Amino acid sequence: MARSEFCPRYHHAVELLGRRWNGAILRAMLAGRARYAEIRGAVPGLSDTLLSQRLDELEREGIIERRVLPESPVRVEYHLTEKGAALELAVGAISDWAEEWLPLPADAA
Amino acid sequence: MARSEFCPRYHHAVELLGRRWNGAILRAMLAGRARYAEIRGAVPGLSDTLLSQRLDELEREGIIERRVLPESPVRVEYHLTEKGAALELAVGAISDWAEEWLPLPADAA
Repeated sequence: MARSEFCPRYHHAVELLGRRWNGAILRAMLAGRARYAEIRGAVPGLSDTLLSQRLDELEREGIIERRVLPESPVRVEYHLTEKGAALELAVGAISDWAEEWLPLPADAA
Repeated sequence: MARSEFCPRYHHAVELLGRRWNGAILRAMLAGRARYAEIRGAVPGLSDTLLSQRLDELEREGIIERRVLPESPVRVEYHLTEKGAALELAVGAISDWAEEWLPLPADAA
């Protein structure tokens, strides 16, 4: 499909990636964060409610999977699926663009 | 900056790209659409009001520029700036991911 045609799959992907907090959650997970508290800690300002919603949504999309480790107490981890790990190129390209073109937070005030 | 640290610039970039319709508008413009009606025509379902809002926002972000051509009637075109054109890698990476990993719309029903 030529890039000039509207592509519903691209449209879904870009809005999923950009939905509030999803991009930051995925970046933290690509960097190896797996436990709930680790992911939350890597995204300042993200509430428990929203993080839970986003993780559920990403799981339904097949981008992450939830693993319950049979320890005591039970431990829950979230891991990227193959589909989710394949987002690394896109997340990397967005990061590179941001680092090249957006001002540092101090300059943006 | 290590990819594992939260990056406000990446966060801004991914949410800008993913804000409703922005990804599709940018893709149409990267494919060469420049006139208002061309851009609107390339994004099914996008209203005039929302397209105008998004174009204003992208202009404020320095991603596109508005050019008024002194014809009769006056013609308005929108062009990517260097900063906007640099999004091509990110848009391409998201498109590639979507084409590989998301079902065709007919399968997604």
